[in-house]
Amino acid sequence: MHAPRLVERVREGDRRALARAITLVENGSEQLREIMAGLAPYTGRARVVGFTGSPGVGKSTTTNAVVRTARAKGLTVAVLAVDPSSPFTGGALLGDRVRMQEHATDPGVFIRSMANRGHLGGLSWATPHALRVLDAAGFDVILVETVGVGQAEVEIAGQADTTVVLCAPGMGDSVQAAKAGVLEVADVFAVNKADRDGARSTLRELRQMIAMKDRTDEEWKPPIVMTVASRDEGVDELWERLDEHFAHLEAGGDLAARRRARAGHEVQAIVLDLLRARMGEVGDDAGLDTLAGEVAQGRRDPYSAADVLVKELGADLD
Amino acid sequence: MHAPRLVERVREGDRRALARAITLVENGSEQLREIMAGLAPYTGRARVVGFTGSPGVGKSTTTNAVVRTARAKGLTVAVLAVDPSSPFTGGALLGDRVRMQEHATDPGVFIRSMANRGHLGGLSWATPHALRVLDAAGFDVILVETVGVGQAEVEIAGQADTTVVLCAPGMGDSVQAAKAGVLEVADVFAVNKADRDGARSTLRELRQMIAMKDRTDEEWKPPIVMTVASRDEGVDELWERLDEHFAHLEAGGDLAARRRARAGHEVQAIVLDLLRARMGEVGDDAGLDTLAGEVAQGRRDPYSAADVLVKELGADLD
Repeated sequence: MHAPRLVERVREGDRRALARAITLVENGSEQLREIMAGLAPYTGRARVVGFTGSPGVGKSTTTNAVVRTARAKGLTVAVLAVDPSSPFTGGALLGDRVRMQEHATDPGVFIRSMANRGHLGGLSWATPHALRVLDAAGFDVILVETVGVGQAEVEIAGQADTTVVLCAPGMGDSVQAAKAGVLEVADVFAVNKADRDGARSTLRELRQMIAMKDRTDEEWKPPIVMTVASRDEGVDELWERLDEHFAHLEAGGDLAARRRARAGHEVQAIVLDLLRARMGEVGDDAGLDTLAGEVAQGRRDPYSAADVLVKELGADLD
Repeated sequence: MHAPRLVERVREGDRRALARAITLVENGSEQLREIMAGLAPYTGRARVVGFTGSPGVGKSTTTNAVVRTARAKGLTVAVLAVDPSSPFTGGALLGDRVRMQEHATDPGVFIRSMANRGHLGGLSWATPHALRVLDAAGFDVILVETVGVGQAEVEIAGQADTTVVLCAPGMGDSVQAAKAGVLEVADVFAVNKADRDGARSTLRELRQMIAMKDRTDEEWKPPIVMTVASRDEGVDELWERLDEHFAHLEAGGDLAARRRARAGHEVQAIVLDLLRARMGEVGDDAGLDTLAGEVAQGRRDPYSAADVLVKELGADLD
């Protein structure tokens, strides 16, 4: 399918076009420039909520419960499950298919997994691009769920309008993980599996952690919601907290700032990719092979060789 | 310690200086430019052997056995265990300390683990830099072992003079993993735990895989060695194959080409890091914030914003 036709079909919310566009994002297709340009005027509307947390806290279950809540309010929902560590592409994972069953006949729900091979070189525009596709397709809400745990996962989930960090009782790790860099991105905490032993102590730990940060009265203080997502308990309250946070962002002007920051990251990631491509071409002309030979023999240090290449690249780009 | 003094101490093979220099590499210290420039004239001598393979095939055990073999031949050996997925720095892991015990009193052996957070943005110069440190310190042989499995691990181990891919019987995965991109980097295969059931069928699978590739008579055909590294069985033969491969590289001029390619990757990784830093500064001047705001609102597409930034960057670099 040619890019203009694909853009049109995505805007109409056509399932197969959506799936195709996200596969093109996964594969770093050359058509992306044209597709993203075509979709741009139709973006900037969807509300994006990120979910992160250690494996086993119930991310999929919670996301699924939030989908039900949003649907009950008449909102259309897309779910994007991003796995930054997977080198494998190719659409829906098993988990998707299971989850899909509940919503299979609902045209207001779209669920998709995506590999994000950012660690292999600068594809960190992949998640923003996929959000752009779903946004242009007209979904009211996009839920981004990261698979696995780690800095990359936190960064992805943190690029949302509202970021939910999930913990679970009896998983000492989950609060520990939350401490490691997650506190900065958390807008709302959910203690899932709150019917289990230890839920109160998890709550207490989180409260202490949240209290440790100085905040002005105007600053948002992350609330904690107790949920049992598998039984839909606490999910309405979770949704209320998400609404409150979104209203807070809108009132204070932070929503625009967050979205600007997200777009800024996306643009910078594209720039790095363009530079990488140019470097390959410039390197041939600038004698990278000769420079590298000198470096390999110890006759030149790698930084002085890099300086030569940077200078050539500058002349080429200007 | 100032860079010139550290360089001097590294050249003398001082343990603490080596450890310190590799920690500076892990942390992306600003001193690296000066240190690498100081070390450059003393590099290009060490022979580098990479080891990769799925978890559980016995990488550490095999590496350790190869250390013993090399020491028996009077060669000094450094082992660098690289974990590309770990965000944690800070020197020796538990595995190192266990392995260290055998060689603790041997001044001819140095073992060190290193996190390589390449996936968080372009630190793919980290492994080449660490090799540079160990090379300048005068080790005859450097063994690079990757922890975990994945494309990043294969790429790291593949940047050696000779790359060993390890498999083990009864691990269907290990040959499968070997098929996925590993065949291109493998110079020698080792079927470890060769006393276990299924070793013959693993051998057969590998043979078939190797046979599938067309080669001229001059081209190196990866040999397969059966080892039980935990009992030092087959390790002398493994060493012989490593020697033969190295002699083949030297005779055909491929050794220089491989080392040139490794240095070229290192230089390109430095260039990308320098560009990333410049982009941050140029972005402020070029109004990245304004551009990103337009992108966030759908009034501009991210690629056209990237083009503006690339042009500014070109003017800045030239």
